[in-house]
Amino acid sequence: MSEKNISVQTLRRLPIYLHYLNSIKNDRDNISATAISNRFGLNDVQVRKDLGAISGNGKPKTGYSVQELIRDIENFLGCGNPTKAVLVGAGNLGKALLSYGGFNDYGLEIVAAFDSAAQADTINGKPVFSADKLASFCNENKITLGIITVPASQAQSVCDTLVAHGIKAVWNFAPTILRVPDGVIAENENLASSLAVLCQRLNGEGLE
Amino acid sequence: MSEKNISVQTLRRLPIYLHYLNSIKNDRDNISATAISNRFGLNDVQVRKDLGAISGNGKPKTGYSVQELIRDIENFLGCGNPTKAVLVGAGNLGKALLSYGGFNDYGLEIVAAFDSAAQADTINGKPVFSADKLASFCNENKITLGIITVPASQAQSVCDTLVAHGIKAVWNFAPTILRVPDGVIAENENLASSLAVLCQRLNGEGLE
Repeated sequence: MSEKNISVQTLRRLPIYLHYLNSIKNDRDNISATAISNRFGLNDVQVRKDLGAISGNGKPKTGYSVQELIRDIENFLGCGNPTKAVLVGAGNLGKALLSYGGFNDYGLEIVAAFDSAAQADTINGKPVFSADKLASFCNENKITLGIITVPASQAQSVCDTLVAHGIKAVWNFAPTILRVPDGVIAENENLASSLAVLCQRLNGEGLE
Repeated sequence: MSEKNISVQTLRRLPIYLHYLNSIKNDRDNISATAISNRFGLNDVQVRKDLGAISGNGKPKTGYSVQELIRDIENFLGCGNPTKAVLVGAGNLGKALLSYGGFNDYGLEIVAAFDSAAQADTINGKPVFSADKLASFCNENKITLGIITVPASQAQSVCDTLVAHGIKAVWNFAPTILRVPDGVIAENENLASSLAVLCQRLNGEGLE
């Protein structure tokens, strides 16, 4: 990975550029920052700054090489050396994440799933184990990232187990806020919270 | 709904407080801001400010009435008068969202799903129609919110159809940025972007 410092906002846009560049790579060799910015309704100065931070500058008239941009974004995101993750909770949302093929493109490989009432041996080719095997699996496979898709009432307990067995980052989809010790990262993906913001805006309520 | 202005950050925490309060309402009548803040590792001044914005102040020693807090948060989030939504794209993620019972608690009711290759008549009791019925359904049922769970390559076209037929807000799960006209709200729920941020932090890369 690059050692350049970039903003969270730039980082959040990189997977979107990457997805788009992959979709056009067979049709064209070069693309301008203006074409990318028009595609997504972004400011072209912003797109140039984003791409400049992880790749070179575009050439006058021809712009950027699509292949080079793809390679530079992939290198930056660590796609060549994916982080191994476990997923805990193979309900509908867990199954959706297991079945989504796109995470490998962004540096994540879900290697196994765990569920207290495992109903299938595999989902999308990933093994599903009973929850009592979680701790030993994390230890033995040196897993650093855990995805939590259990109900809110079980999420903290699952998180504590993961942290006790070597997990350094949790991606939490349960509608709660997880407590983690210093040195462990928690990203709370709270769909209900996003929804509350959206409905509030839709209904014309004031937001500061 | 209340006409008070609150911050997006406060709004994002309200569904989390609501979920927690519902989980304890049968066990206790009152709760203090300190107890809530300890539960989620938040600052208790922040919790007091959040609750003060949509409810009254807690009483000395007894704190807040759990039932009153639930009622005030539900009123604020518009739970009594849910927004009707359609979902487009009944793949794994679409199915997960359809099967998630919790959205009603936050003011959203998914009334129907649409898919270009609809395989089931219903998912979790919600009707699934073929995509060519989307426009007329939105018109006839005065739908204002659309949830997009189709592949990125189809998302803008679906969005344009929704907007042309009365949708005022889109909740987009496709890994792309949607262009919407003025007056229409788009909330992009980009899981790949969240993941990129998480992996970057995990690998100790600098983020500004």
